[in-house]
Amino acid sequence: MSHSSHLDDLAGIGRDSRRGGYSRHVFDAAELELREWFTAEASRRGLSVEVDRNGNLWAWWGSPGPGAVITGSHLDSVPGGGAFDGPLGVVSAFEAVDSLRANGFTPSRPFAVVAFAEEEGGRFGVPCLGSRLLTGAISAERALNLRDGDGITFADAARRAGLDPERFGRDDVALERIGTFVELHVEQGRGLTVPVGVASSILAHGRWRFTFTGEGNHAGATPIADRRDPMVPASQLVLAARRAATGGARATVGRLVPNPGGTNVIPSTVDAWLDARAPGSAETRSMVEEITAAAGSAAADEGCEVRVVEESYGDTVHFDPALRDELAEILGGVPALPTGAGHDAGILAVHVPTAMLFVRNPTGVSHAPAEHAEPEDCAAGVVALAAVLEHLAR
Amino acid sequence: MSHSSHLDDLAGIGRDSRRGGYSRHVFDAAELELREWFTAEASRRGLSVEVDRNGNLWAWWGSPGPGAVITGSHLDSVPGGGAFDGPLGVVSAFEAVDSLRANGFTPSRPFAVVAFAEEEGGRFGVPCLGSRLLTGAISAERALNLRDGDGITFADAARRAGLDPERFGRDDVALERIGTFVELHVEQGRGLTVPVGVASSILAHGRWRFTFTGEGNHAGATPIADRRDPMVPASQLVLAARRAATGGARATVGRLVPNPGGTNVIPSTVDAWLDARAPGSAETRSMVEEITAAAGSAAADEGCEVRVVEESYGDTVHFDPALRDELAEILGGVPALPTGAGHDAGILAVHVPTAMLFVRNPTGVSHAPAEHAEPEDCAAGVVALAAVLEHLAR
Repeated sequence: MSHSSHLDDLAGIGRDSRRGGYSRHVFDAAELELREWFTAEASRRGLSVEVDRNGNLWAWWGSPGPGAVITGSHLDSVPGGGAFDGPLGVVSAFEAVDSLRANGFTPSRPFAVVAFAEEEGGRFGVPCLGSRLLTGAISAERALNLRDGDGITFADAARRAGLDPERFGRDDVALERIGTFVELHVEQGRGLTVPVGVASSILAHGRWRFTFTGEGNHAGATPIADRRDPMVPASQLVLAARRAATGGARATVGRLVPNPGGTNVIPSTVDAWLDARAPGSAETRSMVEEITAAAGSAAADEGCEVRVVEESYGDTVHFDPALRDELAEILGGVPALPTGAGHDAGILAVHVPTAMLFVRNPTGVSHAPAEHAEPEDCAAGVVALAAVLEHLAR
Repeated sequence: MSHSSHLDDLAGIGRDSRRGGYSRHVFDAAELELREWFTAEASRRGLSVEVDRNGNLWAWWGSPGPGAVITGSHLDSVPGGGAFDGPLGVVSAFEAVDSLRANGFTPSRPFAVVAFAEEEGGRFGVPCLGSRLLTGAISAERALNLRDGDGITFADAARRAGLDPERFGRDDVALERIGTFVELHVEQGRGLTVPVGVASSILAHGRWRFTFTGEGNHAGATPIADRRDPMVPASQLVLAARRAATGGARATVGRLVPNPGGTNVIPSTVDAWLDARAPGSAETRSMVEEITAAAGSAAADEGCEVRVVEESYGDTVHFDPALRDELAEILGGVPALPTGAGHDAGILAVHVPTAMLFVRNPTGVSHAPAEHAEPEDCAAGVVALAAVLEHLAR
């Protein structure tokens, strides 16, 4: 299959030997290499490449303009992520272009392949950073001051990648060009029993950073009664999150960093990130309140303080029902299914007609090295995407 | 005071801007700079410097030989540690030499200042690595295969520092030269209400690495019922450690690393290190068994596995009672006190007459940037150490 060979082109970029899988984060060496790959693929096809004000990549088939049909996804990964989440949508977009051309199709509207920056928030903590900036869902000021684990600001990282931080922020020109956005993505659960489906909705979801502060001290010399150990309430946060996630809601602490992190040291602080999602916004908010109250009470019991910062939040997304049904029908009546995963399509859906195509995930594993989709399902994804794009751009 | 000016010489070396305090780990840039400082201080005093087979530094006043009086401590720190833990004992040793010479004293036995390597185990996980190697408490094979957080082996790190890993291991020549070892150290609790005291005992203590394995997956797309999240039993380990530490025992999880550690990722594994200490060995072992059972049960409840590796263990140390009483008397009847902190002196005490002098810690904080001792107490420490050394080496 031409398809799997294209995804294979990326197989060597950004491998993470420590975690397994891939670590590709915005403006790091691996992600810059993927950007070069994007530019080369576009140029090879005679598409004109544009880097927008917020670092998103566009490859235009013909001239840019309003009412455009846009398809694509992202190239970055979570730390230690799989090969499909993100790149599959970009690779499939280029292959759909090849397929349309092979069939002699020329779009009668502006048309582009896009790769949004920092979709996972793996480096600067806020997911869908490129699409949030473009749509104004996050301010340039807040985004540019985000820091990675080494203390580097997003502004500095962007500058080093050759971008001008002064130009970051809501980009009405870019936004107004988008007529319809279609993102193809590997499914991230086991909800799809046929090769391809369409998305119906995304759970409301957000990220909260809990900083527990106690007193750093010696793990051997400090009696238990004298301790203010922030690891104790941080552990209770993890368990409170698990207890609070009922009835389709999800709450996870996947990132937790004790400072300084020595075996024989009671930490002075612990940072823990809560990822919380539920079908509705009220439900999500009330779950987070319940977890926050439990963390506060656990912190008080240990003589610690806790500070909670909302790092990102997105309300429930219901994709355009007419577009969803139209695409499902074009594809022969494929199923529509909800997802718990966030996507740039969810950010854009607030502004423009947006749809997603999902490719079957046989095990449901995602955000992990074992993430997989069968080559024949990926090929079916390209066929489906080409059909949808032909319909929209004719 | 000449004293505080010497400790001040080290104030700029190995500062940790992220964690606060100092991060100085064996054979890293900061620790190599401290080794150069040691060599320069020794040379300035006409002491001859020797790096032994295991990377420990010795500065000999006169010729090396059996029955030597040895004093010193270590130069490395925990991650984000204080200025006193370790360096105070080395600086005070050099200053005690100055004081003895100023008084016209010349030792009638061999005499050296020592700095042991990797006392904190901050880089390779096993504390007192230099003294354990010297005494054979750890095999060269096991030590050389230890890996730091970047996967570098102790063998490779030692080689890069100019040492020959083939020569590492029990060093009977070095051990047999030690007649008496006296280590001066900042006290690490609030047990001392006068400037200087002597040590009576060290708690039995060890380190156990718990590796919880579950299934890495997507934090949004994976229903709670389908999860095998190793962060859940790891959190229960933290709480079980707290519950089990009663009656003078201490149990701490200060280092915990989820892999891959992404906010929107259920980790596939979590490594957590238990530091456990109690007055007796049986008590320590039974506490660790209780904690291990709780961790195993929590792991099973979550469909996870847990593997436990003992990384280090040391039985209760009772310092030589005759030597302890003799030194306390020389110092005018200063108190003897136990400590929960491990020391190279505890490793050597199994083999040779060993004593420790403690310098008062006004807040009891240690292994943290706020660690402090008053200059006048440090000066009293030097006076006491000089008196003790004169008595032992006359």
